[in-house]
Amino acid sequence: MSIITLTTDFGTGSPYVAIMKGVIFSINPAATLVDITHAIPPQDVREGAIVLEDVATRFPEGTIHVAVVDPGVGSGRPIVFARVAGRGFVAPDNGLLSRVTRRHPPELLVRLENPKYWLEPVSSTFHGRDIIAPVAAHLSLGLDPTLLGSAHPLLGSLDWPNPVQRQDRVEGVVLRIDSFGNLVTNITADMLAGRPMDERACVVCNIYETWGIYNAYSEHPHGTFIALVSSQNCLELAIVGESAAARLGIQVGSPVVVAWE
Amino acid sequence: MSIITLTTDFGTGSPYVAIMKGVIFSINPAATLVDITHAIPPQDVREGAIVLEDVATRFPEGTIHVAVVDPGVGSGRPIVFARVAGRGFVAPDNGLLSRVTRRHPPELLVRLENPKYWLEPVSSTFHGRDIIAPVAAHLSLGLDPTLLGSAHPLLGSLDWPNPVQRQDRVEGVVLRIDSFGNLVTNITADMLAGRPMDERACVVCNIYETWGIYNAYSEHPHGTFIALVSSQNCLELAIVGESAAARLGIQVGSPVVVAWE
Amino acid sequence: MSIITLTTDFGTGSPYVAIMKGVIFSINPAATLVDITHAIPPQDVREGAIVLEDVATRFPEGTIHVAVVDPGVGSGRPIVFARVAGRGFVAPDNGLLSRVTRRHPPELLVRLENPKYWLEPVSSTFHGRDIIAPVAAHLSLGLDPTLLGSAHPLLGSLDWPNPVQRQDRVEGVVLRIDSFGNLVTNITADMLAGRPMDERACVVCNIYETWGIYNAYSEHPHGTFIALVSSQNCLELAIVGESAAARLGIQVGSPVVVAWE
Repeated sequence: MSIITLTTDFGTGSPYVAIMKGVIFSINPAATLVDITHAIPPQDVREGAIVLEDVATRFPEGTIHVAVVDPGVGSGRPIVFARVAGRGFVAPDNGLLSRVTRRHPPELLVRLENPKYWLEPVSSTFHGRDIIAPVAAHLSLGLDPTLLGSAHPLLGSLDWPNPVQRQDRVEGVVLRIDSFGNLVTNITADMLAGRPMDERACVVCNIYETWGIYNAYSEHPHGTFIALVSSQNCLELAIVGESAAARLGIQVGSPVVVAWE
Repeated sequence: MSIITLTTDFGTGSPYVAIMKGVIFSINPAATLVDITHAIPPQDVREGAIVLEDVATRFPEGTIHVAVVDPGVGSGRPIVFARVAGRGFVAPDNGLLSRVTRRHPPELLVRLENPKYWLEPVSSTFHGRDIIAPVAAHLSLGLDPTLLGSAHPLLGSLDWPNPVQRQDRVEGVVLRIDSFGNLVTNITADMLAGRPMDERACVVCNIYETWGIYNAYSEHPHGTFIALVSSQNCLELAIVGESAAARLGIQVGSPVVVAWE
Repeated sequence: MSIITLTTDFGTGSPYVAIMKGVIFSINPAATLVDITHAIPPQDVREGAIVLEDVATRFPEGTIHVAVVDPGVGSGRPIVFARVAGRGFVAPDNGLLSRVTRRHPPELLVRLENPKYWLEPVSSTFHGRDIIAPVAAHLSLGLDPTLLGSAHPLLGSLDWPNPVQRQDRVEGVVLRIDSFGNLVTNITADMLAGRPMDERACVVCNIYETWGIYNAYSEHPHGTFIALVSSQNCLELAIVGESAAARLGIQVGSPVVVAWE
């Protein structure tokens, strides 16, 4: 098995993605390549980190996840190999791995230093092609990752907002807007455990509020603003059959409060 | 051979698609995954049904087609396995399969009931991940589909407009707008057989008309509004080198009439 | 190895792409299919040609590149097989291959004439499905390309603007805008060799100018308008962290001059 996934901000249909695939196939023509997404907004490391957290461990152990959202390309920022939950990751150390490693502490961290596994010459603007893709291809052929460089002490992180649990409320933010326009928050189902989920729970986002936290969209008529526990076990706000983000003008970072009387 | 195709309304580059792929590869790492499209407009079951009809039988027999356009997720709507024209389909029974089965009566219909082949636990909002993806993966490994549940009597349908053939005319509608903005109608080449295709045939869509039904775009200058028999053997309206939908403001459902004097 | 890549103007998520894949898998179920891009603007043969030049030789020798940007479908324009730099290409002879063959003279040119390797019947509107896809699939199974038809004398070209080197300046144009909004020019690094790259080099595009040609985005603060040598070894203009095309309103074809005092 040699599954390599790709997550970038290059844009869907970008030739830069195809170039990375060509580099990988030139080293391992039998690799199985899977696009996670190339629709990360340009240089939005946070969104890339959230996607990796949501998706990475759904793939089998041994999968190699390549991630390139890299505003610092050409600067001194390191590129690393990380083994996390039995999967390999090759990515710049700029916070892209900071969510998946919050859940699963890294088992191995190596800083990419050995140019033997890179293309030659290495450009200053496309390390995805010149370093990350060839390293991933070699790893998919069984390369021992400790040959890639020396031990890397600690991954950089980003300032992730932490939800706050109080006696009568839980306070969080909208973390991500999905392709349906649903508002995915950073309030997990765990934080709601033991609290009433019926109409005693009041959920507020910006100036909008709804009562009760449900399990399915289909319990409510089209157009209803609802709160539910999402398939990712997070509190989610949605308008049934429509885009809550577009209809309500809500953006990533907006505050969300669940309050009980 | 274990080709699994995916058709959803999740949006191009959606992490939800990647999650389904991860689930499939976790069960069958050797599967060949093919994206049909993830650009079905949200919850547009009709468009999904049309795409499946156009594409499904182009794939080899034995292909497993996964389709998730599922506004009723979490309600009681069944999920089914259908064998149609030698291909397998796994989809909610909400009309998504109603066009492909108009052409080819189903050879086998099973309602998914056996949780042995599902993820555990099953959410109320993402059956694509929890039921449909793992079932497709098991089928690609050779699972007998009758083990998935009990026989399903009849697939639900949708109200598809039927073209009308009269003595001096054929009346239909615009069924689909393709990515070039061409207007694909529900009038098939069969319905035009034996009628004059030259300038005696007047084709009207909304307030626009053209004479003659041709075979190729390239017979006409750029910017000409033409009718032709499409590659799918349907009457199609197009503006050579431009988007007829955008230029003429025509939408799905608009009436189309072919009239002969 | 049987890698087949696809480059079209069908639009991301187009069912027409999926139909071509179904045709290929029906002939060679073991093919490895790779999407280069389907986001070429409709009928923009020039953009397709540029993408093929950038990407094709990144794939291993033996790869078969399928390209369908084909405004002349149904007219008499030939479809050809070309072997270029050890890779195979199947495409209409309308200029799509005119950039990759500027770099690497074709080793073999065959005009597709033998309907034995086509679908039957052949439509007048979708040769990608009826001729190009099945021919590519047969080639991936090892078919000798000389069996596809007779020798084709010469590929058609397009009028590509050539940069001009003068004593105190190099004059070119914006050739392509990438998905980050960076402006890729037709001025290659070779044309700048031996000239000062520091602040003595003045780079002008439309009414905008910048001094110095650099190697990395990250040397400059967010929002700076810079010139650099791109990962493809071309002069590129960019705004760090933003879209230069959107911010400056610059389009493909805009003049770019590098001048030294």
